[in-house]
Amino acid sequence: MILRLGFSELYVTDLEKSRHFYVDTLGFIEVKQVGKSLYLRAIEEFDEYSLILTEHSYAALANFGLRVSTPEYLLELKEWHDKQGIPNEYVEDGFHPGLGACLKVAEPNGHPVVFYHSMKQIEIRGENGKLPHPMRNLHTIKGIPPLKIDHMNLRVTNVDKALEYWQALGFSISEYVQDTNEKFAAWTRRATTTHDVALVKAPQAALHHVAYIVEGVPGVIRTADLLADAGYRQSINYGPGRHGATNAFFLYIRDPDGHRIEIYAQDYHRDLDYEPIEWTKEEYTNHGRLWWGSECPESFYETTPLNKEWIKEKVER
Amino acid sequence: MILRLGFSELYVTDLEKSRHFYVDTLGFIEVKQVGKSLYLRAIEEFDEYSLILTEHSYAALANFGLRVSTPEYLLELKEWHDKQGIPNEYVEDGFHPGLGACLKVAEPNGHPVVFYHSMKQIEIRGENGKLPHPMRNLHTIKGIPPLKIDHMNLRVTNVDKALEYWQALGFSISEYVQDTNEKFAAWTRRATTTHDVALVKAPQAALHHVAYIVEGVPGVIRTADLLADAGYRQSINYGPGRHGATNAFFLYIRDPDGHRIEIYAQDYHRDLDYEPIEWTKEEYTNHGRLWWGSECPESFYETTPLNKEWIKEKVER
Amino acid sequence: MILRLGFSELYVTDLEKSRHFYVDTLGFIEVKQVGKSLYLRAIEEFDEYSLILTEHSYAALANFGLRVSTPEYLLELKEWHDKQGIPNEYVEDGFHPGLGACLKVAEPNGHPVVFYHSMKQIEIRGENGKLPHPMRNLHTIKGIPPLKIDHMNLRVTNVDKALEYWQALGFSISEYVQDTNEKFAAWTRRATTTHDVALVKAPQAALHHVAYIVEGVPGVIRTADLLADAGYRQSINYGPGRHGATNAFFLYIRDPDGHRIEIYAQDYHRDLDYEPIEWTKEEYTNHGRLWWGSECPESFYETTPLNKEWIKEKVER
Amino acid sequence: MILRLGFSELYVTDLEKSRHFYVDTLGFIEVKQVGKSLYLRAIEEFDEYSLILTEHSYAALANFGLRVSTPEYLLELKEWHDKQGIPNEYVEDGFHPGLGACLKVAEPNGHPVVFYHSMKQIEIRGENGKLPHPMRNLHTIKGIPPLKIDHMNLRVTNVDKALEYWQALGFSISEYVQDTNEKFAAWTRRATTTHDVALVKAPQAALHHVAYIVEGVPGVIRTADLLADAGYRQSINYGPGRHGATNAFFLYIRDPDGHRIEIYAQDYHRDLDYEPIEWTKEEYTNHGRLWWGSECPESFYETTPLNKEWIKEKVER
Repeated sequence: MILRLGFSELYVTDLEKSRHFYVDTLGFIEVKQVGKSLYLRAIEEFDEYSLILTEHSYAALANFGLRVSTPEYLLELKEWHDKQGIPNEYVEDGFHPGLGACLKVAEPNGHPVVFYHSMKQIEIRGENGKLPHPMRNLHTIKGIPPLKIDHMNLRVTNVDKALEYWQALGFSISEYVQDTNEKFAAWTRRATTTHDVALVKAPQAALHHVAYIVEGVPGVIRTADLLADAGYRQSINYGPGRHGATNAFFLYIRDPDGHRIEIYAQDYHRDLDYEPIEWTKEEYTNHGRLWWGSECPESFYETTPLNKEWIKEKVER
Repeated sequence: MILRLGFSELYVTDLEKSRHFYVDTLGFIEVKQVGKSLYLRAIEEFDEYSLILTEHSYAALANFGLRVSTPEYLLELKEWHDKQGIPNEYVEDGFHPGLGACLKVAEPNGHPVVFYHSMKQIEIRGENGKLPHPMRNLHTIKGIPPLKIDHMNLRVTNVDKALEYWQALGFSISEYVQDTNEKFAAWTRRATTTHDVALVKAPQAALHHVAYIVEGVPGVIRTADLLADAGYRQSINYGPGRHGATNAFFLYIRDPDGHRIEIYAQDYHRDLDYEPIEWTKEEYTNHGRLWWGSECPESFYETTPLNKEWIKEKVER
Repeated sequence: MILRLGFSELYVTDLEKSRHFYVDTLGFIEVKQVGKSLYLRAIEEFDEYSLILTEHSYAALANFGLRVSTPEYLLELKEWHDKQGIPNEYVEDGFHPGLGACLKVAEPNGHPVVFYHSMKQIEIRGENGKLPHPMRNLHTIKGIPPLKIDHMNLRVTNVDKALEYWQALGFSISEYVQDTNEKFAAWTRRATTTHDVALVKAPQAALHHVAYIVEGVPGVIRTADLLADAGYRQSINYGPGRHGATNAFFLYIRDPDGHRIEIYAQDYHRDLDYEPIEWTKEEYTNHGRLWWGSECPESFYETTPLNKEWIKEKVER
Repeated sequence: MILRLGFSELYVTDLEKSRHFYVDTLGFIEVKQVGKSLYLRAIEEFDEYSLILTEHSYAALANFGLRVSTPEYLLELKEWHDKQGIPNEYVEDGFHPGLGACLKVAEPNGHPVVFYHSMKQIEIRGENGKLPHPMRNLHTIKGIPPLKIDHMNLRVTNVDKALEYWQALGFSISEYVQDTNEKFAAWTRRATTTHDVALVKAPQAALHHVAYIVEGVPGVIRTADLLADAGYRQSINYGPGRHGATNAFFLYIRDPDGHRIEIYAQDYHRDLDYEPIEWTKEEYTNHGRLWWGSECPESFYETTPLNKEWIKEKVER
């Protein structure tokens, strides 16, 4: 089965600018640079990285990864996608450094998904063998810091159709917004949090944001202070405020390429088999998107385009 | 000398609505009701009350009080105001219950100021004599709670002229905004915080807000959560965000009569004799009013009118 | 499969004293009283209750419940326990009000376990249909408040032997302490947090504590303030401090019967299939039990006895 | 008049060890090194420094400084001390770099006090002229960080006698502990916080601790995490816990020379002319020293000796 969201790769146009934003300012741990890719981790993660920034000719969501419970399940997934006629490609050698075999899939809306089982784990013990856990190094930490990747918010042209795919994969809806004839949005997950993957209706498929959890309300506000003090006031896109759906306290920020990161805290846990929470479109407009806070700026509707080269020949078939 | 801001009285049009807002929701301690006046205190105050809500035919700033160091200084102040020809009235008996002698003054812009020395103090020990301090009763506290009154933000038609009065009284400017030919705003104080009384240019004299300190960033955000959950989402007027001037983290809320309360945290302390910090108008517009956060809504410029009956005959002379 | 810890029932000797401690002071939501049982819930729980306090002739851990993914899995569990010769009893009608069918088991150390699938869920919408989520009522909340049940810490006479049972049920070890010839302690889980069930060696099987998550460091410290202010200073048993194992920030408190509750924050999430973290006994003694904080008092080793009447005839066979 | 505590100088035996503790770990801002003295500042201070660490042949409290309102008042103080026959020395040139004229006094218990008016202020504007305030640089800050010096806790052999001196200087008692025939302790201040200078009875005059304010409860706990993670677990001396007297949330830590720093948050403000709060010795023992928390270790009674060379000839007269 699928376990959770594991990582995302973003195409950026200037690696140094991105490093200054993510590492020097926000406090992501810089794991390594390989070629034009920077591998970053949040401080409570055991996977070697959860964010890859790759310098490219255009800014885009390159791909994102979902961890599955066994290597065998990857093969089951391949078979299932083949049967469905969904473009996919099984890669033995590890598509990213430290990643084991993976299945690259062009999700029906074109989202570049990577299923994988094995990811290099960090050393639990430090150099002297005496400091277990990644969380035992507060004195070396700067920035917010981000604690853990939380979810991807994807724009899709038809939420009900997208849900057919994601529910077939075992994703459970925690909350959704029902418009007259179709769903406007759905938060779906394999972890017990409110979502690993959110699906929201838009004119075209795109990435709206990647979210990272921080330490509660103070962590969210600290992000805004850090950005403003470091000269990134324009990078604060929207918030802080509280969402109705998911209950999360949020701040949306944008990196030098305009990729949106949600700085996220305080959503809830709920078993996957419980009935989703329904919002009518009207309720969602009134209270669900925003429980309290300022209205969002127009720029909040701008999105990150998808990888144009993603198993291209197959998608175009 | 003048020590600090001590209290404010607001005219409200429906005492029960005000009680529900201030006491039941925000967590002000209800001290007593005398006639149509409700006396409230924040939880770290030793004075019996710092907020008086009085039901009246119109909403207004009724008056606000500044504590002075000795009874004798009140008489000095009377003499000085008389010399300056500033309308004033010395009241022996206590203008408010629990207040000692006071000097009522119509500040040159018409602001209704009360100077006083003696205010009834709360019992430091509880009923059983065993619990000293007002802060020893967290189990009885609800709401945010507010900790302490902080400052008054007054609108005046001419800041330089208003400063002549306030500086003559010994108020020290912590920060100010210099426009081409005049000051646009000044934060002045007798306490070592950034301000007891802020003066901001506007078409007419009015109260912009009364501020209360809460416990840091979480206290400010908790206020918004409390208001939204209790059905007062419309009462959240502006914020949360960070001011440049004063460094404070803020949320502006409005009570059922539209009186604006600033929920305030994290300004700094600085000795009264140091040089004020200057902002040009341009700097203030760019960074000073708002270090980061959403732009303020139009309604943020609405104000509370002043007491129309304040030592009226003298003001009209 | 087993999903997570769901509830515990504690025998208490004076229901009113317990109510004053858990409801009036700590802020558990009182759901209902049925006979001599009080049903309580933490504020971010969707299950109707997670704590049952039942007045009884002696204080004890009456039982605790683990939720399973399907009704069918309950039957599989029955079959498996029967095969293993582990005393158990399938109850159709709901052992607790609101609970569906369940399997009562005397775990090999005698711990009174209840496996169940169905538990009554709270109304997501309030009376007026307008307020979704249990978290939308901060204005009605008092106390800490506790957010969610987290784990049971069980004393067992032989950890390795206990692990045979718990691992057979699919529990994954997140961390463990290796003594010379045996494990001293193991934190095991079905959720992705560090543990649902901790197993620690002791002279006899008993309950050490039930843990509830609160909102970060401030929530933990607020608990101590609340207890001290409400006259329960003696109920603060140990802490605050930080554990090495699990990384959690903790405070241990004891209810009027001496049942120990851990007020818990900031452990981490990790997939169930990763290698556990090993501590040697020496490391654990030096850094693992306590990363920093005061040494624990002798009373920290006192425990809650187990239900003496738990499917008694079978246990005694 | 005297305004507030301004700085302290500590003799340390290894400047590099001290730098690693105070600057690299706790996050004091390193202002400059002059000879064997390191000048440090907390992040919300406008004075150039508040802590001087000077390498010396022995660890001691070298001296501490109290700021007065005018240069003239320094001369008044000289005259008064001369009249009282209290050893003192007026230094024109600035006893520390950046300090103006000062009066060095051997307080009746031998405490090395420095009265001064003028201290070099930090640049309010950064290099580019665009960032006013010292608080506008969160992105450059590490460690806790400490916000501001708060108070000195002095051991004296006779509190009543010591109070004669401090009260003559205008210090106001906020709280005190009354033993049968004498005061056991008194918290005295010129600022409106609970104390600038605490006086506690002990067999001999010494420094117990210097206190710095941090950002609330999370700042205090962060200190313990930072120290433990950086390998300074032994430097955590006592706490965290809550004091009854002053209401403060505290953690006591010790630097490499054993100097004790109180990491301090949440005391209250109260006017200087109000009646002090009295604790009986019994109340103080039961609730006042410790409102809640672990009992203090024996090492908590160890102290820092006083400067042996302080205007020595005069003291020995």
